[in-house]
Amino acid sequence: TKLGIVGAGAVGATLAYAALMRGVAQTVALYDVNTAKVRAEALDLSHGIQFVPMAHVEGSDDVEVLADSDVVVFTAGAKQRPGQSRLDLAESTIGIVRSILPRLVEVAPDAVHVMVTNPVDVVTYAALQISGLPPARLFGSGTVLDSSRLRFLLAEHIGVAAQSVHAYVVGEHGDSELPLWDSASVGSVPLLRWRTPDGAVALDAAARERIAADVVQSAYRVIEGKGATNYAIGLAATRIIEAVLYDEHRILPVSSLLDDYYGIGDVCLSVPAIVHAGGVGDRVEVPMTDAELGGLRASAEAVRATARRFGF
Amino acid sequence: TKLGIVGAGAVGATLAYAALMRGVAQTVALYDVNTAKVRAEALDLSHGIQFVPMAHVEGSDDVEVLADSDVVVFTAGAKQRPGQSRLDLAESTIGIVRSILPRLVEVAPDAVHVMVTNPVDVVTYAALQISGLPPARLFGSGTVLDSSRLRFLLAEHIGVAAQSVHAYVVGEHGDSELPLWDSASVGSVPLLRWRTPDGAVALDAAARERIAADVVQSAYRVIEGKGATNYAIGLAATRIIEAVLYDEHRILPVSSLLDDYYGIGDVCLSVPAIVHAGGVGDRVEVPMTDAELGGLRASAEAVRATARRFGF
Amino acid sequence: TKLGIVGAGAVGATLAYAALMRGVAQTVALYDVNTAKVRAEALDLSHGIQFVPMAHVEGSDDVEVLADSDVVVFTAGAKQRPGQSRLDLAESTIGIVRSILPRLVEVAPDAVHVMVTNPVDVVTYAALQISGLPPARLFGSGTVLDSSRLRFLLAEHIGVAAQSVHAYVVGEHGDSELPLWDSASVGSVPLLRWRTPDGAVALDAAARERIAADVVQSAYRVIEGKGATNYAIGLAATRIIEAVLYDEHRILPVSSLLDDYYGIGDVCLSVPAIVHAGGVGDRVEVPMTDAELGGLRASAEAVRATARRFGF
Amino acid sequence: TKLGIVGAGAVGATLAYAALMRGVAQTVALYDVNTAKVRAEALDLSHGIQFVPMAHVEGSDDVEVLADSDVVVFTAGAKQRPGQSRLDLAESTIGIVRSILPRLVEVAPDAVHVMVTNPVDVVTYAALQISGLPPARLFGSGTVLDSSRLRFLLAEHIGVAAQSVHAYVVGEHGDSELPLWDSASVGSVPLLRWRTPDGAVALDAAARERIAADVVQSAYRVIEGKGATNYAIGLAATRIIEAVLYDEHRILPVSSLLDDYYGIGDVCLSVPAIVHAGGVGDRVEVPMTDAELGGLRASAEAVRATARRFGF
Ligand SMILES: NC(=O)c1ccc[n+]([C@@H]2O[C@H](COP(=O)([O-])OP(=O)(O)OC[C@H]3O[C@@H](n4cnc5c(N)ncnc54)[C@H](O)[C@@H]3O)[C@@H](O)[C@H]2O)c1
Ligand SMILES: NC(=O)c1ccc[n+]([C@@H]2O[C@H](COP(=O)([O-])OP(=O)(O)OC[C@H]3O[C@@H](n4cnc5c(N)ncnc54)[C@H](O)[C@@H]3O)[C@@H](O)[C@H]2O)c1
Ligand SMILES: NC(=O)c1ccc[n+]([C@@H]2O[C@H](COP(=O)([O-])OP(=O)(O)OC[C@H]3O[C@@H](n4cnc5c(N)ncnc54)[C@H](O)[C@@H]3O)[C@@H](O)[C@H]2O)c1
Ligand SMILES: NC(=O)c1ccc[n+]([C@@H]2O[C@H](COP(=O)([O-])OP(=O)(O)OC[C@H]3O[C@@H](n4cnc5c(N)ncnc54)[C@H](O)[C@@H]3O)[C@@H](O)[C@H]2O)c1
Repeated sequence: TKLGIVGAGAVGATLAYAALMRGVAQTVALYDVNTAKVRAEALDLSHGIQFVPMAHVEGSDDVEVLADSDVVVFTAGAKQRPGQSRLDLAESTIGIVRSILPRLVEVAPDAVHVMVTNPVDVVTYAALQISGLPPARLFGSGTVLDSSRLRFLLAEHIGVAAQSVHAYVVGEHGDSELPLWDSASVGSVPLLRWRTPDGAVALDAAARERIAADVVQSAYRVIEGKGATNYAIGLAATRIIEAVLYDEHRILPVSSLLDDYYGIGDVCLSVPAIVHAGGVGDRVEVPMTDAELGGLRASAEAVRATARRFGF
Repeated sequence: TKLGIVGAGAVGATLAYAALMRGVAQTVALYDVNTAKVRAEALDLSHGIQFVPMAHVEGSDDVEVLADSDVVVFTAGAKQRPGQSRLDLAESTIGIVRSILPRLVEVAPDAVHVMVTNPVDVVTYAALQISGLPPARLFGSGTVLDSSRLRFLLAEHIGVAAQSVHAYVVGEHGDSELPLWDSASVGSVPLLRWRTPDGAVALDAAARERIAADVVQSAYRVIEGKGATNYAIGLAATRIIEAVLYDEHRILPVSSLLDDYYGIGDVCLSVPAIVHAGGVGDRVEVPMTDAELGGLRASAEAVRATARRFGF
Repeated sequence: TKLGIVGAGAVGATLAYAALMRGVAQTVALYDVNTAKVRAEALDLSHGIQFVPMAHVEGSDDVEVLADSDVVVFTAGAKQRPGQSRLDLAESTIGIVRSILPRLVEVAPDAVHVMVTNPVDVVTYAALQISGLPPARLFGSGTVLDSSRLRFLLAEHIGVAAQSVHAYVVGEHGDSELPLWDSASVGSVPLLRWRTPDGAVALDAAARERIAADVVQSAYRVIEGKGATNYAIGLAATRIIEAVLYDEHRILPVSSLLDDYYGIGDVCLSVPAIVHAGGVGDRVEVPMTDAELGGLRASAEAVRATARRFGF
Repeated sequence: TKLGIVGAGAVGATLAYAALMRGVAQTVALYDVNTAKVRAEALDLSHGIQFVPMAHVEGSDDVEVLADSDVVVFTAGAKQRPGQSRLDLAESTIGIVRSILPRLVEVAPDAVHVMVTNPVDVVTYAALQISGLPPARLFGSGTVLDSSRLRFLLAEHIGVAAQSVHAYVVGEHGDSELPLWDSASVGSVPLLRWRTPDGAVALDAAARERIAADVVQSAYRVIEGKGATNYAIGLAATRIIEAVLYDEHRILPVSSLLDDYYGIGDVCLSVPAIVHAGGVGDRVEVPMTDAELGGLRASAEAVRATARRFGF
């Protein structure tokens, strides 16, 4: 199996590292316009090969390096700068997609494509139109990362392992996203009914608001502090890649083209979906309160508005 | 860190293997009355040491080999033979516990103890009384295994990854156990509302009954076919060990001494509980239907009745 | 990728377990004539699926279950009983090979085959003749296990990690096998020149003899104590499988058809060889003393003699 | 167990990531003077916690965060800029060591310290003097990274897995370092006697020279291309940490205070040494040619000269 990565920046290279450490593919190929950088990243990754499951690492400024990839993760783009919103990045990113994707589809005709570049929902929508690929075969990493941030915060707040918290952030990977509180659970207890040892409701409205805001702010705070976010997204993307390469049928909140999901359609947005070898499968209709559904609709509208601004 | 295992039979040795492969402890020590067998198991395990994270394996017929263990897993006992119920095994097993546990507590005074030997709920209750250990520090592997069987069956039935299915089997690790259907979920969708792609309810009453029966029958079927069950329990026990050694605060359906859990007390029974470095922490009050609660009460009664038969 | 296993006995099932835990293949299929057993093993393995990388486990008494395997490991055969030599097993095993292999090659035409059943060298030779497969595509697990036993013993003796000891056992997987002392090294120091902290030679002739004997006796001692050897061989076989599936080009002492290896040919015997996706590649001509070469020749003769007894 | 990291730059944060992914410690604590950065790195790492073995991540600008660490890896310092040699960094780095180490030893009195900051040999020597720690408990990552680069290059050149190549780079982690060709081996064949399939010597003098130069140039090339080296060093350091935390007694070319190693003493330099829970143990006297020994002596002299320039 072969993992192809477009863009050897903070996200692309870290993702290659995580994928190598977990041994998900026998070949990991990186493509980037920055020749010196992509070669240096491939070299640095190769130097550690003795310590990880066997794999070959390649880096090149020629898309051909991604030939016959089984999965391609798209991370090329401008880094989000402090203060900059994800939508500001859209225009230039779409240009990059337009310049690379057609050739990419040619050299890796059977690949499943995972878009990571921001604004990921708009980029995914544009990429579908540009490539004409079937919607199952191209989707965005969406709110898999945001959901893992939510779980981390909830786990800390409640005092259980993140693996025992089941909760999704849905909608735009961005400011209009929202946690699905109503359906969230902790070890089969509805999250909203979880109680502290002294009997109080663990997650009152104030706590929910604070945590929801924290999730949205997380990326900004990390970027402000270190200039990029790369470690968690590297693992989140690796999880998605594994779901595809191992045909896991795992439910992950990826950004896919919706078609009458609670009436929402013609937009790429994150909702829980079954991810398998063919890409993204059935979307999962998680029960939502009216407020949550309203939030999701608003998020869809926000993403659609941006897309329209760029002619999609 | 040191993992101690009492009993180097099918379960004990396989558990040692899984623990070594996952690198959970630097020392894995096996104790068994069968001198030749325990040495042979330790030797076989040692021969593979080159292929796993570094560890030392020891095997002895002297309990002293378990000195200073951080976690001790108790698997000594008679194997369940085809046709034999888990309760039939109780008497002899309790004798074994009585003969080993006091000395074990002496040599490994700070260990957390995980009982696996069947009938695990009764054995756990007896072991608490025999040892006088605080209930947090001694509990049974309970229905962690049964729950993983349930998840496997549900995952197959529904067509998603087992990791996306959240459901517990509670009660006795045995014939009176029951799945908690009402609180079970698949990717944040209540299991009972999950629909097949064509819109039908995925898990009607008949399917539920069949799957619940399958879970209970699983152990019997495996034992009939191969004379023991060892692989899944080896992984389930390793998961519990990791929760303790890594202080995970993971919610697992282990068998612990209940004290007013929905009014149920003075019995060891599996309900979801938070497992951490100190052993078993808060029990999690999963919402149940009246029927489920009734089933749990009946299961408690069944376990209590057996315990009483053996003077506990 | 798909791993096929012929024989769901102690070795076959344990190997499946190790392979599942290490996530080497998406499908692990077991074939055995014992219908009840193979189904039970597959069921037990499946029950643990939640705790390992995603995979599907299948068990059947129909060879068809192995269709399209990438690697097939052959473990069917009679277990070595206490006192019984590996050669005693030959006749019945060859019969099994004859009955299964042709059909197996039909359903999995592109597989690399790894023979484990004893006497592995004779069985491998016979299997090549029976199947007509190119010698690169069918070889035996050989002395990979014995070498890991040697490394474990040397590591204990010298006081370093097994991973820092580089030494091979070559020849027959059996009584005539021999360690290659002269070329063995510990952290780039020739093993024979390694000194204890107080300056003495660490491995004098007596120690070498004792350790060489220990390696040969290991299997017997384990079998005497527990009735089978399964854990270390499960890991050793998994290492070989990884070398093939990941195209590692790793040097492993597998049993392959020799053709003028130091003049030795027309026999299957273990010498270090490069294992990759195509199976076994170039044999590695390790420098040997005259005594070592003599030992290898004698071992070849022993294996050939047995083969001849069975008409090969 | 607790892993402490001083410096949350490219190396420190990547090392934390690798250590988290491999599950080596339950707590990973980062300390850095750059408050915003260290918090951001800890946050980013925390967000991925759901995807790795359970651990707690902490980041702070107060050394206290490293309290009671079992291992501390020191990566604080200025990044090597394109064109800058490792020795140029010495002065400022030693200042950093002087300001942090005494307090660090106070809060983590039992830790084993692994220095990574460059020029690592001089920094290690200075740190031993500044701290007064026993030489076993403080050493540098040395040429573990360089050796893995050498193995990668040799593996590529020869066509075998890096894991089958056994070779060390010794001396300064820097321009005067040298590969030990004479004792290097590939699958028990002396490297210098390895032949290509067509019978030619695989590694003639020209190839050796090129590869040796490549190893030295590697860091420069990576830094030129991407501004830092972090991935391979993250894995190399994790390997060292595992050797300590798992008491592996693994032979690794770390930089330790030599005392009559082939007559060389009073300098920190990399030679193969046994690494275990107590830190660095016996140095391994690998046989060397006169030229190699001369090279090592010259390297010692180079390191000593730099140390002297900084008053050590
Ligand atoms: N979806 C998420 O959850 C998520 C999380 C983190 C980052 N991101 C996004 O990922 C993207 C990458 O972030 P980063 O931190 O790695 O940025 P980066 O600037 O470090 O890397 C981007 C890389 O893309 C390369 N590139 C630019 N144009 C290219 C082209 N035409 N062809 C090939 N390569 C090209 C650049 O040379 C650079 O190496 C950003 O859009 C960021 O917002 C998304
Ligand atoms: N709780 C679960 O989920 C679960 C799952 C599988 C098996 N089990 C139970 O685990 C137990 C062990 O099963 P097994 O298949 O390994 O059985 P086994 O017969 O293979 O092994 C039991 C071992 O205990 C040893 N033993 C007996 N008395 C001893 C004593 N006094 N001191 C030390 N060792 C002693 C025996 O020598 C034997 O090696 C059984 O009770 C079985 O029912 C529980
Ligand atoms: N090469 C090595 O390093 C090594 C190490 C350990 C064991 N072994 C060998 O592996 C073999 C298996 O050992 P084991 O302990 O698993 O034995 P086992 O008796 O436990 O298992 C053998 C299995 O083969 C099955 N079998 C028999 N005939 C068959 C047929 N015609 N088709 C399909 N399946 C058939 C049996 O039903 C049984 O389940 C033995 O020959 C043993 O000596 C080799
Ligand atoms: N030994 C090796 O094999 C090897 C390999 C790669 C890098 N390195 C060395 O590692 C060091 C770090 O490299 P990098 O790329 O991470 O650099 P970097 O600049 O990215 O990070 C260095 C970090 O140290 C911090 N720091 C500076 N002064 C400090 C102080 N007084 N207290 C706490 N933190 C302080 C900085 O804030 C910064 O975050 C360099 O010296 C580099 O040469 C060594």
